[in-house]
Amino acid sequence: MGQLTGRDPSLLRRINSTVVLRALRSEVGRAPLTLSDLAGATGLSRPTVEGVVEGLLDAGLVAEAGEEPGEVRRGRPARRFRFRAEAGHALGVEIGVHRVGTVLSDLTGRRAGTVVRGIGESDGADERLKQTHEAVAELLRRTGVPHTSLRAVGVGTPGIVEADGTVRLGTALPGWTGLPLGERLRSFFRCPVLVDNDANAAVLAESWQGAATGSEDVVMVLAGLSPGAGSMIGGRLHRGHGGAAGEIGALHLLGREATPEHLLSTNGEPLHPLDEAAVAEVFARARGGDERAARAMERFVHRLVHDVAALVLALDPELVVVGGWAAGLDDVLEPLRRELARCCLRPPRVALSQLGGAAVATGALRLALDQVESDLFSVGDED
Amino acid sequence: MGQLTGRDPSLLRRINSTVVLRALRSEVGRAPLTLSDLAGATGLSRPTVEGVVEGLLDAGLVAEAGEEPGEVRRGRPARRFRFRAEAGHALGVEIGVHRVGTVLSDLTGRRAGTVVRGIGESDGADERLKQTHEAVAELLRRTGVPHTSLRAVGVGTPGIVEADGTVRLGTALPGWTGLPLGERLRSFFRCPVLVDNDANAAVLAESWQGAATGSEDVVMVLAGLSPGAGSMIGGRLHRGHGGAAGEIGALHLLGREATPEHLLSTNGEPLHPLDEAAVAEVFARARGGDERAARAMERFVHRLVHDVAALVLALDPELVVVGGWAAGLDDVLEPLRRELARCCLRPPRVALSQLGGAAVATGALRLALDQVESDLFSVGDED
Repeated sequence: MGQLTGRDPSLLRRINSTVVLRALRSEVGRAPLTLSDLAGATGLSRPTVEGVVEGLLDAGLVAEAGEEPGEVRRGRPARRFRFRAEAGHALGVEIGVHRVGTVLSDLTGRRAGTVVRGIGESDGADERLKQTHEAVAELLRRTGVPHTSLRAVGVGTPGIVEADGTVRLGTALPGWTGLPLGERLRSFFRCPVLVDNDANAAVLAESWQGAATGSEDVVMVLAGLSPGAGSMIGGRLHRGHGGAAGEIGALHLLGREATPEHLLSTNGEPLHPLDEAAVAEVFARARGGDERAARAMERFVHRLVHDVAALVLALDPELVVVGGWAAGLDDVLEPLRRELARCCLRPPRVALSQLGGAAVATGALRLALDQVESDLFSVGDED
Repeated sequence: MGQLTGRDPSLLRRINSTVVLRALRSEVGRAPLTLSDLAGATGLSRPTVEGVVEGLLDAGLVAEAGEEPGEVRRGRPARRFRFRAEAGHALGVEIGVHRVGTVLSDLTGRRAGTVVRGIGESDGADERLKQTHEAVAELLRRTGVPHTSLRAVGVGTPGIVEADGTVRLGTALPGWTGLPLGERLRSFFRCPVLVDNDANAAVLAESWQGAATGSEDVVMVLAGLSPGAGSMIGGRLHRGHGGAAGEIGALHLLGREATPEHLLSTNGEPLHPLDEAAVAEVFARARGGDERAARAMERFVHRLVHDVAALVLALDPELVVVGGWAAGLDDVLEPLRRELARCCLRPPRVALSQLGGAAVATGALRLALDQVESDLFSVGDED
């Protein structure tokens, strides 16, 4: 309430600038706007709009439509302006166990390109970061976007990640626990870098452009030997007090139950926790009628269903999205629906990930775009 | 952003009125304010403040300090005004298995009185509502507050409760499932009635005045044969998409595991699910060295710990508050802390309920006060 009577000329200028930029952005892909259009759309006076637009032209965020190559002035029309979505770029990066994925977009989220690289599961942190830098360099080279055009970078990676981008716990990747990943990447990119857990990035992605568009309360499970989950509550990512929300894979530690690596074993020897090929083989053998493999897979699905049910009972989401390995497992959806119906009054919908392997990098891009949004288009504490 | 240029005289009057009322309320218990004080505190002009104060005097929400019985005017001082916290009242009601609890406060939350009545666990909905009405009538009679002074009523009760106050599922109370509780109570109270799950009310209460003050991310477990939980996320109650968040007691349905009533049995016969006396006896015998009782209690604690751990992994709160039966069980805290340390990187603090048996009614009062707050003191979409 204190703000109602406050006056701050620089804040006012910033608000006006944001209002004009938003009006122009909403016209992206449609006809550019005149100063009169902008005055009408924003409720600001024409001289105010004119001053604001000059500032935005100087900052490179707005272009005069007639100045564009290929555009032709018609007679002596009023000057028209458009938002320069190409004035900067956002980058999304997945740093995973077996690969680095990158995706680049302009300031409105329109894709410019993507590069994915395989990486060894036993590679250390330095090698993994080197591969990341090389993948980004290749992406920028291919798209012709200069490094300096990056306005924000989002990163999704396995583990519990601090707000500053330090990996508090990341057992899936060698040398990951304790790594100041945000700091390392910021010194490389020289722009804001947002690092988050891979399942958190994945649920952002599915909410933005995947299976969860239009849903405000979503649990996304990245099923693996140890499942992780990301949750949207009321349309916002729920990270938890210590960034560890959704780490439901730790529940089996309590019961002194079998580790996931033992669950899927068909010969008593645990699988290597990151050996996706071995897991895929167990699933394939199970489908082919191998009884030991079928029992192993049943144990795996049972554990997954239990973990997801615990999340659902805790959070009561409207939708559960299943991704990760299990996204290749149609067999997991029916048991999940059946068991959720047993323990929930109104079970959530259950859907497979639509973005599949692109989910984490896409969600990381969304993190970067949210930062751009906050830098360019937000005023005060509104969203 | 559209609001920045909007003008609405009635909205402006309402904002001004709210600003003045807030300034006066903040002075409750301190010296009343003059018109000049109010102009200074709000940034409004003196004539505006004067007009607003006249309106608030007419509405009975503000009193002139000199008009108060017992107060003496000193010479010819400027008129001074105060918020009339007694201009209305808020009521919190617990409708539980074994009792109805009520608590009354003025508009600032200051307690006026409380009445608690025992009730039979097998009493039907009509009888339970009759007892509720009688408890409220007794409370109003004792405190001398007229029925018409109630500005809002909050109610906490076991079960999954819809936004309109209908009990979607309430197996603990006979005739509760499907009961349009909100509608029934609104026709009786003739003011806004907010109905919520008892664990949700309890976590509100502990956050307001109990073990969770100052914590934004809290899980409150009402431990019973089937535990329920209420959660605060970022300082807000998390009800879930269908109002069923925290119903973690249903998790055992999945595993086809023993029902809670069997867990605590010492002779193979299940306990009656609402028989608190029988449960207390098992606990007492366990403490007295009875081995069968000790094993039963161990099973109960183990289940409780597992359910709470699932909530903690899903939500990653900073604090877990244990209430309900287990609030009498110091024995439950140590196993809970130990097991959470096994599965959480940074385990939450674990504390016993401070409000004990008063938690649900106190949280229901908070629900009512939030409604009062929203009616009298809020503007637009701020909190």
